[in-house]
Amino acid sequence: MRRSLDGLLFPRSVAVVGATPLPGKIGNAVMANVARFPGPVFAVNPKYSEVLGRPSFPSVRDLPQPVDLAVVVIPAEGVLQVLRECGEKGIKNVVVISAGFKEIGKEGVQRERELVRLAHEYGLNVLGPNAFGFISPRVGLNTTFAPRTALPGHIAFLSQSGAFCTSVLDWAWKEKIGFSHFVSLGNKAVLDECDFLEAFAEDPETRVIVAYLEGIRDGPRFMALARAISRTKPIVILKAGRAEAGARAVSSHTGTLAGSDHAYEAAFRQCGVIRARTVEELFDFAYILSRQPLPKGKRIGIVTNAGGAGVMAADAAEWEGLSVARLREETLQALAQKVPEEAAIYNPVDVVGHATLEQYQAALELVLADPGVDLAVALSAPHPILRFADLARAVRQAQERTGKPLAVSFMAGELGEEAEEVLRGAGIPSFFDPARAVRAVAVLARYAEIRHRPQEAPPTLPVERERARRVLEEARRRGRVRLGLEAMDLLAAYGIPRARGALAKTAEEAGRIARDLGTPVALKIVSPELTHKTEVGGVRLNVPPEEADRVAWELLRSLRSRFPEVPLDGVYVQEMLPPGREVILGMVRDPTFGPLLMFGLGGIYVEVLRDVAFAVAPLSRAEAEELLELVRGKRLLTGVRGQPPVARAALVELILRVSQLVTENPQILELDLNPILCYPDRVVAVDLRLTVSEEGV
Amino acid sequence: MRRSLDGLLFPRSVAVVGATPLPGKIGNAVMANVARFPGPVFAVNPKYSEVLGRPSFPSVRDLPQPVDLAVVVIPAEGVLQVLRECGEKGIKNVVVISAGFKEIGKEGVQRERELVRLAHEYGLNVLGPNAFGFISPRVGLNTTFAPRTALPGHIAFLSQSGAFCTSVLDWAWKEKIGFSHFVSLGNKAVLDECDFLEAFAEDPETRVIVAYLEGIRDGPRFMALARAISRTKPIVILKAGRAEAGARAVSSHTGTLAGSDHAYEAAFRQCGVIRARTVEELFDFAYILSRQPLPKGKRIGIVTNAGGAGVMAADAAEWEGLSVARLREETLQALAQKVPEEAAIYNPVDVVGHATLEQYQAALELVLADPGVDLAVALSAPHPILRFADLARAVRQAQERTGKPLAVSFMAGELGEEAEEVLRGAGIPSFFDPARAVRAVAVLARYAEIRHRPQEAPPTLPVERERARRVLEEARRRGRVRLGLEAMDLLAAYGIPRARGALAKTAEEAGRIARDLGTPVALKIVSPELTHKTEVGGVRLNVPPEEADRVAWELLRSLRSRFPEVPLDGVYVQEMLPPGREVILGMVRDPTFGPLLMFGLGGIYVEVLRDVAFAVAPLSRAEAEELLELVRGKRLLTGVRGQPPVARAALVELILRVSQLVTENPQILELDLNPILCYPDRVVAVDLRLTVSEEGV
Repeated sequence: MRRSLDGLLFPRSVAVVGATPLPGKIGNAVMANVARFPGPVFAVNPKYSEVLGRPSFPSVRDLPQPVDLAVVVIPAEGVLQVLRECGEKGIKNVVVISAGFKEIGKEGVQRERELVRLAHEYGLNVLGPNAFGFISPRVGLNTTFAPRTALPGHIAFLSQSGAFCTSVLDWAWKEKIGFSHFVSLGNKAVLDECDFLEAFAEDPETRVIVAYLEGIRDGPRFMALARAISRTKPIVILKAGRAEAGARAVSSHTGTLAGSDHAYEAAFRQCGVIRARTVEELFDFAYILSRQPLPKGKRIGIVTNAGGAGVMAADAAEWEGLSVARLREETLQALAQKVPEEAAIYNPVDVVGHATLEQYQAALELVLADPGVDLAVALSAPHPILRFADLARAVRQAQERTGKPLAVSFMAGELGEEAEEVLRGAGIPSFFDPARAVRAVAVLARYAEIRHRPQEAPPTLPVERERARRVLEEARRRGRVRLGLEAMDLLAAYGIPRARGALAKTAEEAGRIARDLGTPVALKIVSPELTHKTEVGGVRLNVPPEEADRVAWELLRSLRSRFPEVPLDGVYVQEMLPPGREVILGMVRDPTFGPLLMFGLGGIYVEVLRDVAFAVAPLSRAEAEELLELVRGKRLLTGVRGQPPVARAALVELILRVSQLVTENPQILELDLNPILCYPDRVVAVDLRLTVSEEGV
Repeated sequence: MRRSLDGLLFPRSVAVVGATPLPGKIGNAVMANVARFPGPVFAVNPKYSEVLGRPSFPSVRDLPQPVDLAVVVIPAEGVLQVLRECGEKGIKNVVVISAGFKEIGKEGVQRERELVRLAHEYGLNVLGPNAFGFISPRVGLNTTFAPRTALPGHIAFLSQSGAFCTSVLDWAWKEKIGFSHFVSLGNKAVLDECDFLEAFAEDPETRVIVAYLEGIRDGPRFMALARAISRTKPIVILKAGRAEAGARAVSSHTGTLAGSDHAYEAAFRQCGVIRARTVEELFDFAYILSRQPLPKGKRIGIVTNAGGAGVMAADAAEWEGLSVARLREETLQALAQKVPEEAAIYNPVDVVGHATLEQYQAALELVLADPGVDLAVALSAPHPILRFADLARAVRQAQERTGKPLAVSFMAGELGEEAEEVLRGAGIPSFFDPARAVRAVAVLARYAEIRHRPQEAPPTLPVERERARRVLEEARRRGRVRLGLEAMDLLAAYGIPRARGALAKTAEEAGRIARDLGTPVALKIVSPELTHKTEVGGVRLNVPPEEADRVAWELLRSLRSRFPEVPLDGVYVQEMLPPGREVILGMVRDPTFGPLLMFGLGGIYVEVLRDVAFAVAPLSRAEAEELLELVRGKRLLTGVRGQPPVARAALVELILRVSQLVTENPQILELDLNPILCYPDRVVAVDLRLTVSEEGV
């Protein structure tokens, strides 16, 4: 649902329910912060007629006007009543700072459910409960109880942890980092990350959206939003809880390999969200993305007056995926004229320690101006002949003249106030460690790529939905949850190429099918309880058609005598295919994002090397192509040792059809196509295993 | 060569050659620093009779006594003369700060060569030339021209970059980090990293050795030293120049895969050197290793008053290779009594934001005291009820009581002087980012492992050296540089199991050999110019013994007609072996470390997945075992899908024999055993390719 959060984030008037003049209380700390808001502010507290210089009223009902925003800091027991009163008074936006909801267990869960109901009934935007509040620096509103406020700026910050908010405020104050929005989500009972993503996307002051999240409430909505927003504004997320061991019961191959973090990783990649691993990365990325222009490519220029720093930066460039730019001849010639004789003029350009300020600046400008350089780092070590403030000004000028993105590492304990002021004014990030400066500019290149990659919708291919529905319906009717080859018709319905074959209930029928196929066949037992066919001796390969009935008869007899209690559906008779390159395609349903596809090279590559890649369905054609590129052994598909490449277009088509199958049929809970045989001219699914929901749909 | 550097690092008297009272000159800056040395200091400068309050003499010859150390800061042209005078005067230690040597090209190279000659002639310890100097904080000696000096402490620092030294001094001053030694190596003409490693190893004040290096001069000496030292003192090295593209001409498979950085990586791993990737890591590691005790294992306890920080730390623990400790029942019960009701008592322990100082401290002490916890991080976000100084004291006390290693992340912009003082006094590192605190304690666990791993010498196995020598001699005599199957006897000489077979010069001989073997055979053409046998159609497989002479005749005829110019040595007749798991073992000579072995799973695993591991020979048995563990696909050797494991002991033995072969025969420049077939009961080398030096030995 699209909500306007303007009234919440930019209210014209505010009431603090639970405001108190008693120091040490949260209601006091919040009121002290809100009281600085330049518009009308009211307190709600029956004990006082005034709190911190603002008028106080006994209840929300008694307020002289329906304010735009109510901030609630009373004990949990009274919160629902306040919400009702807000609803009746026409107050549409409420921040519930009070704790005592979902986070305290059963009683709180019930209370939170009622809170949600009231919010829907009255159409309230509720932030929280159990939230740290929010800050809108631009209008001078701080609804938190933090001793520090946020400076105005261009980073919109969203956090699922209130404690982390206090840390960030404290740190940002020291670093003089500003925010366009600063929001603590609390329990996300009503408003969640998606609502704020939408609001931040439309906010002209917001240049970067940054979030600390431990989970996402609505995966599909998040993906749709993030996909759209990341084309105009970078989104950087620190998603904590990677190590979380998913305790799902899984029966498929894909299920054993796919963890919840794979889903987040895939979803973020697909929608262009930049994932930060650590707090340091989160804010390094946020700052540079909010202040520096985007590069055209990823060729880095490195200018230094200290050789070691240049080497370290070149190393970092390699592992951050940048390429060290090759300077053109004109630049090299000009450099040779401008810098000391001992200087190294090939990138990394080392002007050496005794270079003057003018020489350093000339070198930096020449490197930045080279058309083969997309972005740069300017490095230095302390040297008696250079003042950092002068160097900072030189760097700023060089950048102003060329307009290319830049970060610096002056490798000094303290730069001095003046140098820091200059760099901050120019939005040029500065780090002690050259590797960190390189990592920062590298994220600009990553985001530039995200912004320019083609965006296309998942295709909708012509399929026989009714035919697929019948297969699933039949399974449900027979109480079957795990299906195998007997469900091959599901693939047929979705146009997924598969080995020819059919289920035979008797040996005679097996013989007939084999003769119709006219090729040597594989005979595979079909039973809802014997899903590991090979392990129980339920497979016979390379059977000539004329022997199929006899072999099928023996196979059935052997299994009946060994597993007398187990129902046998029959024998699946399938054409034998020549050896091909094996791949596997599977799906599990992720609780957050839904259908998560897994692609890998078959056999050992999956089982031992875990060389697999994930993507959330439905996939666009580009995403299906990308999936093939994400496995380490991808060269096996293009052909090694003189092999021809496999039919890539057919494989992509197959992935798209499976993507559509699992998207349109949510009752399929898990799916493995394993193996899929790939040939130069076609791809063929040979075996199938799936789990369907008992409820049907 | 073992040199005592005591006279250099702890001189009783010092002369500064080139000292001057003129401000702005390096000779002035150096003299100003050296003049603070409490012992006798002399200037050498014919223009003055006194410099900065110390007596000045016209030349080294005129000094009133042979000082322990001369610091030379005159132009390069005069340096050699000064060295001669030092030698004649009996001055044994010289720091040459002057530039103008190897680093300026041809003329300088010549000058440096002469410097080395003089050093040998007079037995001088020369640091430099082109060095930044060194600092011995403990005796108040600073021979650099840096405006800052180093504080006394327990970190010995070695740098190949002078500029980096100035950065580190500046930063260490701000962070109040102290050093036992601080040395800039300069051009390493005489003294190099190894000499200082030795000196630092024996220095009782040095607890950690830290180095920034761009290369190592003597790889084998470095490895021997580092192996020994790392058992008592941690060595942390930032080796820059990873990206360096090795422009060697290589013809082996191993050669195309092995870069110079692989050799450094392997050598560091084998000798227990901890490699830092960035400057930040270098000093984070150095500080914690110098101040915190070593843990018994790698189980981390996490205590926090902010949930998000705990989650981030748990994530970081996973990717740093630590395990999140499982607290024992008694600890959980005690925690439940001591912390607020809403607290999470399972590790990560979250005492929640409103926990009191006493509650936080009690929780931390309980977690540290748990026998299942080896090390810990203490985390916090700013909260009105906690003062950081108090929290710091609580953390210090908790650690004092339990003696377990610890790092903190209070996630605050500024801790305040007092809190920092407390933490610094206790040697507890503190970071804003919880992940960085976890990374710091993780290095303690890594070093504890290094210290306790078994150390054993490479074995010397009984081999037929003379027989091997004959094979290589024969190749040299015939002018052969690239050898193949005709050199299989080399393997025999070193007891390396190989497929049975022999070289036949004629078809008749091939038939005879095949009949002797009595099994189907492979026939492989042997020619110094046709090294890719399969690609030129020079291989016939599965030939029955009775057909061997005919097939060999056809093979020879076919190749003679297609390559009339190419000399053919004959046909190698080899027993056909059943399919086995293929591995590859190869060797190239690294310019720094010598024989670099490469092990990998054969075929696709090497060619496409690059799943290979490296080690510098000679290997100990433990190192050979480790090599098998380092490939991602190692499970293929222990057996998947019901396969039995391969004969691991035999494979290790084979690796050790190849290690000995390449160590004892330096004229072997490159070697590939590919494939080696592995079976449950034995391993067998099937093909061989090697390059030998033209010079012989």
